[in-house]
Amino acid sequence: MRVTIKGEEQEMKTVWFEQPEVVMIDQPKLPFEFALKRFSTYKETTDAITTMIVRGAPAIGATAAFATAQAVLEYKDGDFKEHMEKAAEYIKKARPTAIDLAHGVDQVLSVLNQTNWDPEASKERAVAEAENISRNYIERCRLIGENGNKLIKDGDKILTHCNAGWLACVEWGTATAPIYMAKRAGKKNFVWVDETRPRCQGARLTAWEMSHEAIDHAVIADNAAGHYMRKGEVNLCIVGADRVARNGDVANKIGTYEKAVVAKENGIPFYVAIPSNTYDYECKTGDDIPIEERDEEEVTNMWGKGGNIRIANPESKARNPAFDVTPAKYITGYITDKGVLKANELEVIKSALSQ
Amino acid sequence: MRVTIKGEEQEMKTVWFEQPEVVMIDQPKLPFEFALKRFSTYKETTDAITTMIVRGAPAIGATAAFATAQAVLEYKDGDFKEHMEKAAEYIKKARPTAIDLAHGVDQVLSVLNQTNWDPEASKERAVAEAENISRNYIERCRLIGENGNKLIKDGDKILTHCNAGWLACVEWGTATAPIYMAKRAGKKNFVWVDETRPRCQGARLTAWEMSHEAIDHAVIADNAAGHYMRKGEVNLCIVGADRVARNGDVANKIGTYEKAVVAKENGIPFYVAIPSNTYDYECKTGDDIPIEERDEEEVTNMWGKGGNIRIANPESKARNPAFDVTPAKYITGYITDKGVLKANELEVIKSALSQ
Repeated sequence: MRVTIKGEEQEMKTVWFEQPEVVMIDQPKLPFEFALKRFSTYKETTDAITTMIVRGAPAIGATAAFATAQAVLEYKDGDFKEHMEKAAEYIKKARPTAIDLAHGVDQVLSVLNQTNWDPEASKERAVAEAENISRNYIERCRLIGENGNKLIKDGDKILTHCNAGWLACVEWGTATAPIYMAKRAGKKNFVWVDETRPRCQGARLTAWEMSHEAIDHAVIADNAAGHYMRKGEVNLCIVGADRVARNGDVANKIGTYEKAVVAKENGIPFYVAIPSNTYDYECKTGDDIPIEERDEEEVTNMWGKGGNIRIANPESKARNPAFDVTPAKYITGYITDKGVLKANELEVIKSALSQ
Repeated sequence: MRVTIKGEEQEMKTVWFEQPEVVMIDQPKLPFEFALKRFSTYKETTDAITTMIVRGAPAIGATAAFATAQAVLEYKDGDFKEHMEKAAEYIKKARPTAIDLAHGVDQVLSVLNQTNWDPEASKERAVAEAENISRNYIERCRLIGENGNKLIKDGDKILTHCNAGWLACVEWGTATAPIYMAKRAGKKNFVWVDETRPRCQGARLTAWEMSHEAIDHAVIADNAAGHYMRKGEVNLCIVGADRVARNGDVANKIGTYEKAVVAKENGIPFYVAIPSNTYDYECKTGDDIPIEERDEEEVTNMWGKGGNIRIANPESKARNPAFDVTPAKYITGYITDKGVLKANELEVIKSALSQ
């Protein structure tokens, strides 16, 4: 995707492999500084997942695959299978809940079976498979973009929440992919960027992406989204999802539920953009999805250029649910790599995970 | 109301008169430091309104009345009426839209007519009238508290947005008055405090009030309100209002509309607490209420203990509507000093302004 650094426009991915190094954008520095980081061992690459240098399920999946390939390249002597099992265990522990992480590792390991765990033969195969996994993520996001682009009219004002952008994927993003495709198709749109308290991934990351892709946008307090919906200044909402249950209920960043309810009340289409592997057929409804509660300091404090400051009354506690569940009835459709689907059509993508 | 400073519990008002000084809580220092400020001239007192040492319509109204009384006390020689006209003009310019400000000034001026503008005879009358205005604000808020208390059940979890607390009034507050009355009636309740971006008056001021009144509460990102409503953890919503139109539409802090829509969707009663003079019979509907758009820095930046920091992407613009309009159909009722009213009953308070 496009970033302009010191006046120079470049094509950029979130993470990529330059043997033997994994290169990634140093995301905690965004939006105030753009820097790349290079990791030459699987442990370093894994630690970059843990410290959230890279985040977002697809980007984590690709990074985990690259780390596993690095582990193959790093093998020197001893039992190769043991070496890889140890490495896989280490990588899978990087983040507790990211299902893509384990898939990235397992998919690279599976090609080692095909070489009968021959260390030398495995090297080329592992690297090729990791690259393949990364390309698959990109391709799925590109297809989401193409399918979603058809829903966007020239001049539409689009609201998005949090960052389901290319920084969370490898390229394109999920919720942002249709917006980027619409831009490339010559449409002129405007994006309302919910700042997305408490961590403000909208104000920090989505706004940064929009700037660099030169898409007209404004950051708003989350509270203002409903106001603009009621005033007729939002034509379309597109968000991402952390998990979609069998019945179409969506777990996504806290606040998604409110936006969906208010969008429905105002007759505004509300779409959830997901790669097909975000659909979890084993999970019956949204109520089966556990909601992570994070550190209250994310609410009571705020960080940015200038440090970390306390904003809330010092004697008060805070609660900090990271996600909420939006029932399927509020969702107009699901923009997937297999097309734009209704909730009752989602089962067509249930086998996508094994692809 | 109750504040505990260095372990010592005190009764406190937002603003009061200690002839010839007006004393007020230095609100910009809250919630990190508690300090009082004293102003010995009407100009100093007026400037404290401008710089928002004191804010909130009722508190501003009382302060303007005290400032006008100070102007009477300050008179030395020359034409008394001219002196007072000049003072009145200065005070009324302190904040552009606060209707209570002008009322506070005019009400004190009106008693000067009764003394035929005799400077000496005016002094006592002006001070008495200013005190009377302040007492009226307190009494209206107390009645809101008594009326609203009947809606609160022991154990209820109550959501509030922004600060319609005693810091915005002289005592009791509007949205908070029923909560404080319920506490004094021995009920145990829990308050969800929306932080209320962008200025975070919930996290800063309402949370501070709740701490000092020893009411169980938690600050949440505005995005989390809907989540807790859907999970059945909110039984009642009470907010304040900047203006209520003839038909019951409510202008209040940005985000109120979203909360009201989501509350209705979840069958949760949503009440607006107002002194009867907040009802504007001359304003037909919410769409006739102009919405102030404030500086975008309130969204892109954040201040707190530790300074002012930039949180949003440096290249992005922001939009910052300060208020939104909640149509009457989302509002269960209006908790007023004249009782709890439905939208179609509001006309009974239309003459309250002249009281």
